[in-house]
Amino acid sequence: MIFVRPVEGLPEIREGDDLGALIAERAELLDGDVLVVAQKVVSKAEGRVVRLDEVEPSAEARELAAGGDPRRLEVILRESARIVRTRPPLVIAETRHGFVCASAGVDSSNAPEAGTVVLLPEDPDASATRLRERLRELAGVEIGVIVSDSFGRAWRQGTTDVAIGLAGIRPLLDLTGELDSAGYELHATVIAVADELAAAAELAMGKTSGIPAAVIRGYDASGDGSARDVVMPPERDLFR
Amino acid sequence: MIFVRPVEGLPEIREGDDLGALIAERAELLDGDVLVVAQKVVSKAEGRVVRLDEVEPSAEARELAAGGDPRRLEVILRESARIVRTRPPLVIAETRHGFVCASAGVDSSNAPEAGTVVLLPEDPDASATRLRERLRELAGVEIGVIVSDSFGRAWRQGTTDVAIGLAGIRPLLDLTGELDSAGYELHATVIAVADELAAAAELAMGKTSGIPAAVIRGYDASGDGSARDVVMPPERDLFR
Repeated sequence: MIFVRPVEGLPEIREGDDLGALIAERAELLDGDVLVVAQKVVSKAEGRVVRLDEVEPSAEARELAAGGDPRRLEVILRESARIVRTRPPLVIAETRHGFVCASAGVDSSNAPEAGTVVLLPEDPDASATRLRERLRELAGVEIGVIVSDSFGRAWRQGTTDVAIGLAGIRPLLDLTGELDSAGYELHATVIAVADELAAAAELAMGKTSGIPAAVIRGYDASGDGSARDVVMPPERDLFR
Repeated sequence: MIFVRPVEGLPEIREGDDLGALIAERAELLDGDVLVVAQKVVSKAEGRVVRLDEVEPSAEARELAAGGDPRRLEVILRESARIVRTRPPLVIAETRHGFVCASAGVDSSNAPEAGTVVLLPEDPDASATRLRERLRELAGVEIGVIVSDSFGRAWRQGTTDVAIGLAGIRPLLDLTGELDSAGYELHATVIAVADELAAAAELAMGKTSGIPAAVIRGYDASGDGSARDVVMPPERDLFR
């Protein structure tokens, strides 16, 4: 049995907040738990917020904006390694971490105030590692941590939450060579466990309820890796 | 709190089995639960199994096989509305239901015997509806049912489980126009809830443990719709 429990009662997160301590006070954690934290609050605690009135849009940003706010597009361009697709004002970009997502992860919903946008963490694996270490220190527990974000997908509507940063987690479960229940060998069966954990946590969090974290108990995802392991090498990607 | 409980002790499923009765005997169901059943057992119960020695491969199948089994490629072609990408022996296809996935969902792992392949259900929403009605009849409960399968994704490695059929479930949660916790309006925020439920269930099922179903309690996904609602209209798909 797997339990997904929301972390309730967190205050609005601001730059410099000790997110680990705020979670430790509100979540009952046990060894082996997986803590999933929405990127938005991690970014806010890390000060990854940009005031649009301090942004000077480039010519490229003005062109991409097509009636939208060119300053927002300028921030997206700065966060992008490359622009993958555009249909103004929508932009799909590859972030500097390698993730392909809308607006390079730059988001104005749930921003701390009007006129600001929130960026992805600079290094989401490092954010997860810091949270994991802080919770070990405060609660004496050995847990896995996932930083999640809501990504759109090719071919399918709607977003699902995925892992953009992790620590103490095996992101992919490779069953290649194992036997199925009938004794046949499974071929090329790799399960994106970290993304499934992020998706399960989203169900308990909710975008409008202001619950940005959840604890999953009863699933052993412990291991090592990086959320960048989940990025598909272009030469192997038949789905794009 | 959300609970994800595996349905344990199901026998190997064969054509004609009363899957609803087999699940009702083993799962304690309550009104509002979501039952997620892996496509493989639904297909087996429905006899959606093909013996490869009864398949005569076409010239196109022989060409696509490129060293693999041309009879398997023939079955994939028959299940496909169109071939999306190929890198022999891998094929990404759009199924007749509109789903884009590897091998048009034709699978030889967990097949009932060597030399057979399992197809997707003919109409996975109808499969879910029949299971839902059978469980209402046997257990007196009003639940939602999802038929799930493991799909690869563009840009990211590994599969996550998604909903390919559903009944009594609202597949997409559209928050457009709702306010976030800071009072700002959410734009174009649609969450693929059915896919997140399928992903959460996969964590409790596992490919090698022979557990093909799970019950999710504590998440209200009740509503109407079709798994085809989750298929992205091509003209709106910036991610492909």
